[in-house]
Amino acid sequence: MKVSDIGQFGLIDRLAGLVEAAKDENAPAWQELILGMGDDCAAWHAHGVELAHVDAQIEGIHFRPEFGSWRELGWKALAVITSDIAAKGGTPTYALVSLTLPDDTEVETVTELYQGMLELAKEVGVVIVGGHISSAPLLTVTITVFGRAGEGILLRGTARVGDKIAVTGDLGGAAAYIEMLNQKLKFDEKTVKALKAAFLRPYPRIAEGKILLGEGIRTAMDISDGIMSDLGHILRASGVGARIEAECIPIQPEVKASFARQALELALGGGEDYELLFTGSGEAIRRAKAKMTILVTVIGEIIAEPVGVITVVDAQGKPVNLSRTGWDHFARR
Amino acid sequence: MKVSDIGQFGLIDRLAGLVEAAKDENAPAWQELILGMGDDCAAWHAHGVELAHVDAQIEGIHFRPEFGSWRELGWKALAVITSDIAAKGGTPTYALVSLTLPDDTEVETVTELYQGMLELAKEVGVVIVGGHISSAPLLTVTITVFGRAGEGILLRGTARVGDKIAVTGDLGGAAAYIEMLNQKLKFDEKTVKALKAAFLRPYPRIAEGKILLGEGIRTAMDISDGIMSDLGHILRASGVGARIEAECIPIQPEVKASFARQALELALGGGEDYELLFTGSGEAIRRAKAKMTILVTVIGEIIAEPVGVITVVDAQGKPVNLSRTGWDHFARR
Repeated sequence: MKVSDIGQFGLIDRLAGLVEAAKDENAPAWQELILGMGDDCAAWHAHGVELAHVDAQIEGIHFRPEFGSWRELGWKALAVITSDIAAKGGTPTYALVSLTLPDDTEVETVTELYQGMLELAKEVGVVIVGGHISSAPLLTVTITVFGRAGEGILLRGTARVGDKIAVTGDLGGAAAYIEMLNQKLKFDEKTVKALKAAFLRPYPRIAEGKILLGEGIRTAMDISDGIMSDLGHILRASGVGARIEAECIPIQPEVKASFARQALELALGGGEDYELLFTGSGEAIRRAKAKMTILVTVIGEIIAEPVGVITVVDAQGKPVNLSRTGWDHFARR
Repeated sequence: MKVSDIGQFGLIDRLAGLVEAAKDENAPAWQELILGMGDDCAAWHAHGVELAHVDAQIEGIHFRPEFGSWRELGWKALAVITSDIAAKGGTPTYALVSLTLPDDTEVETVTELYQGMLELAKEVGVVIVGGHISSAPLLTVTITVFGRAGEGILLRGTARVGDKIAVTGDLGGAAAYIEMLNQKLKFDEKTVKALKAAFLRPYPRIAEGKILLGEGIRTAMDISDGIMSDLGHILRASGVGARIEAECIPIQPEVKASFARQALELALGGGEDYELLFTGSGEAIRRAKAKMTILVTVIGEIIAEPVGVITVVDAQGKPVNLSRTGWDHFARR
């Protein structure tokens, strides 16, 4: 059955049914909801600081059928957007989903996409409160996610000279998965599975963002475009520079094993890791690390100059040249 | 200059500059803003009820180059989305804009689109707090708009038997403009101007939505898909039916003069009017009308049965048959 067979409103009714079936009466976001999916406007009781972030996933650019199932892509689409709320130290609450769909899209494609989103939504306490649908030649998924914070939030412009630079998790797996598909590389099953999971199952670091705030860390971002690009935003906003130790980068083991020299570039510049990148005193980072159940690695230090520049050095302190330094939606092809 | 020449971040910097230049220190939304355009996440101080609505405008479907300039389309894109906040009786506050752009899009196209949005934003007190940009084969404008309400908001499911049904403004002009372009009809300059304005310059009925709430009206929607479709939502949500008097429909004078028999269908089913459709006691509607500076017309009455059905009758009380009864994004082509 195609979406044109049941029409826009028929499809929205069906999706609203999926959302309702996933209802969790005990979740704070459900308790504070006034109007959800099916109305023109979502409405909820607000307090504290409201956070909002929008991102778009476009067929053929951010996802292609060979990347994974619609359910997996649904999980990922909501996860990567929720990651930005995590990177502020906030609690995600609601999401508005806007889809553009070709008329011949299978209804099942859309319901599977929703099932994947709802799976992640349930884990992180998010309620999908709106599902706009338009007919278009191209399938796109634009999600606005909301979150709540107290008075403190993690920022970009607060890095200070002497801060250590750290990251959660390991890096490079998502970019390596796309490289594997693009280059048609053949790896063993375990490696393929690990790289695929890195790409398709990023987990928003919500608990970790709150731990950072609690331990006095002020500066963080999530790694969406690659450390080189995302750290660059922190440096420019803060008016500082950075030195990164190549040897310290926590490259995902399967990437290190399968990509040799290219592994460092995938980990530094590949993007889509959705780990947290943060700066703070060595002491604050140690305290935060002690409270987290995932890997935390210090990878370098904030320095005074040159402002906005990241110097990557090897074990001997010599600069490392990188050919690939981050994702720009228009520059990289 | 193309967007691919300055890249995603270059373009966002430029757009953030336009938003900053339009800053109004006295606007409440600016005063409560914590993080705006240029950061990953928008943040603001929240209180009361938060409203949120998303809508997408797609090149070739919702707009085509011949419809108007990019500046005009920018105004319209933000206006039609803000209309949903108005229809809840809320005050619009912030907007997140997500654009998908072909690589060869002119930078000027995007800055003009923003100038149009900023023109409307300034009039209604909205701050653009985020501007996500993706490269894609198709130009789309997806806007999430936020608003604030007190405890009372206008709803869909609260229409009661005996309520009068009323609308603000006059109807059919926007649909007539598209009909004129599609059929290549030739009208005099004054008519063309009036129809074009109806399509390109809808004005969100924010003040009117608040007056409705203040006078005890409970039920409203904005007319985006045409009365027949939008009133249908109210009827199904409320479990009631409706009788509409064809003679009472406030058809835009230029539509009546230029489209003869088709005029009624354009006014009832054409869509994109962005006027308010509401129901309430005759007395409440009279009080609200007395406080508004725009046209308010009673067009019919809520009846018990059949539930969900709109019966349109002529001056003799005989049913009128309509061939076109509303917009569905997948059904109508």
